[in-house]
Amino acid sequence: MIKIVLFGAGNVASHLCTVFEKTSGIEVVQVYNRNLNSLSELPKNINKTTFLSEIKDADIYIIALPDDVISDFSESLPFKNKLVVHTSGSVAMEALSDNNRKGVFYPLQSFSKNRAIDFSEIPICVEASVTSDLILLNELGNKISNTITEISSEERKKLHLSAVIVNNFVNYLYQVGSDLLSEASLSFDLLKPLIKETALKIENLTPFEAQTGPAKRNDKKTIEKQLHLLKDSPHQKLYAEMTEAILREYNKDN
Amino acid sequence: MIKIVLFGAGNVASHLCTVFEKTSGIEVVQVYNRNLNSLSELPKNINKTTFLSEIKDADIYIIALPDDVISDFSESLPFKNKLVVHTSGSVAMEALSDNNRKGVFYPLQSFSKNRAIDFSEIPICVEASVTSDLILLNELGNKISNTITEISSEERKKLHLSAVIVNNFVNYLYQVGSDLLSEASLSFDLLKPLIKETALKIENLTPFEAQTGPAKRNDKKTIEKQLHLLKDSPHQKLYAEMTEAILREYNKDN
Repeated sequence: MIKIVLFGAGNVASHLCTVFEKTSGIEVVQVYNRNLNSLSELPKNINKTTFLSEIKDADIYIIALPDDVISDFSESLPFKNKLVVHTSGSVAMEALSDNNRKGVFYPLQSFSKNRAIDFSEIPICVEASVTSDLILLNELGNKISNTITEISSEERKKLHLSAVIVNNFVNYLYQVGSDLLSEASLSFDLLKPLIKETALKIENLTPFEAQTGPAKRNDKKTIEKQLHLLKDSPHQKLYAEMTEAILREYNKDN
Repeated sequence: MIKIVLFGAGNVASHLCTVFEKTSGIEVVQVYNRNLNSLSELPKNINKTTFLSEIKDADIYIIALPDDVISDFSESLPFKNKLVVHTSGSVAMEALSDNNRKGVFYPLQSFSKNRAIDFSEIPICVEASVTSDLILLNELGNKISNTITEISSEERKKLHLSAVIVNNFVNYLYQVGSDLLSEASLSFDLLKPLIKETALKIENLTPFEAQTGPAKRNDKKTIEKQLHLLKDSPHQKLYAEMTEAILREYNKDN
């Protein structure tokens, strides 16, 4: 039985709490959060506290708090030589306090409230300074996911950057599409099958192979027409630059 | 029975041929293509020709050829007063020859060779100058898809532009993510669950609600770190501009 104390009550903490709770071999012995209200949304049977002085004994202490408080929070923990990990994509393991053994348990996914997640498909990226801790984090990860990867803080930075690009930036493009349709009084639902297929396609094809459209085939006439359609839009610059980037990509050998 | 003659042997033509062939109430009486080789990849039982003089009689003639040849090709057809439609997102219906009755049958999806498509989920956008033709195109669309929408050429232009943004541009971002991971010797597979979840999320949430990440929460520290990580990369400008756009979007009221 791996005993866990979770710090935090946001999206990552609550999704982790949910999956740990239903997985045999893992026990969430306690969830800490400064604010009592947020804690009340977690399952009733779990021990909760708002006092660091009441923290129970555990095998792994998981800090699932905002990036900018992780370091200071880890310093404030009232115990020593335990395994303390964070769940952030962009914070180095070394940012954790030297008072305890350090590690990272980073689930590479975008968590939203009110949206269930199948953890078995989520890559869990682990890191630890002590080998036995790395083994324990691997064991924890393996209980909830099929993909556990050991990744250094340096590598994790680049992974997180790529995640921002394929998640946040992609989602922003969905919004631009939605805005343009709404200006034309058309429903965003029309684009949803295309959005889904675009994402599913790259499970078998590389993005390079999967590319289609006016920029890839250097169809200047369509590109001009679309730029014209955007002449009064704040999105014209985005269109021009993305098109330019794709044109470059597919004409590298010329 | 709706009798179809298809012109073309590319991705759209061959996917349409496949779905029409397996749908009761539709008969592909012939497929025309200038080039015999491409025709050979279509099902054996279908009548094929490379001669316009041999075109058979049909209820709907579907031109599934590149955008820039649709107009001239429609002029070259050796018959009059038939229903001739094209399948393009960006070509106006009026670009078709006046020799025949005009229409559009635009399946809003990105077709790739060697990738099967479930047509039932694909929105089909139809347009025709004659009401009885519009009814026939609706009937054809309904046999293969659950979503048929009547859309004018003006609306279709905007829809196609949005499709370029959520398909071609999004796929390009997948490629940027893949490039960055490959520079760090990390597998693109790590990002695939995130890519899939990002696309599936907007089936229930609006893109505005689904947004997360450093730009949305105005996390300047992470943004600075990621810009620094890209300091020698051709993608730094893209990162800066997408971040700026998201920052603007979520700080409109300030």
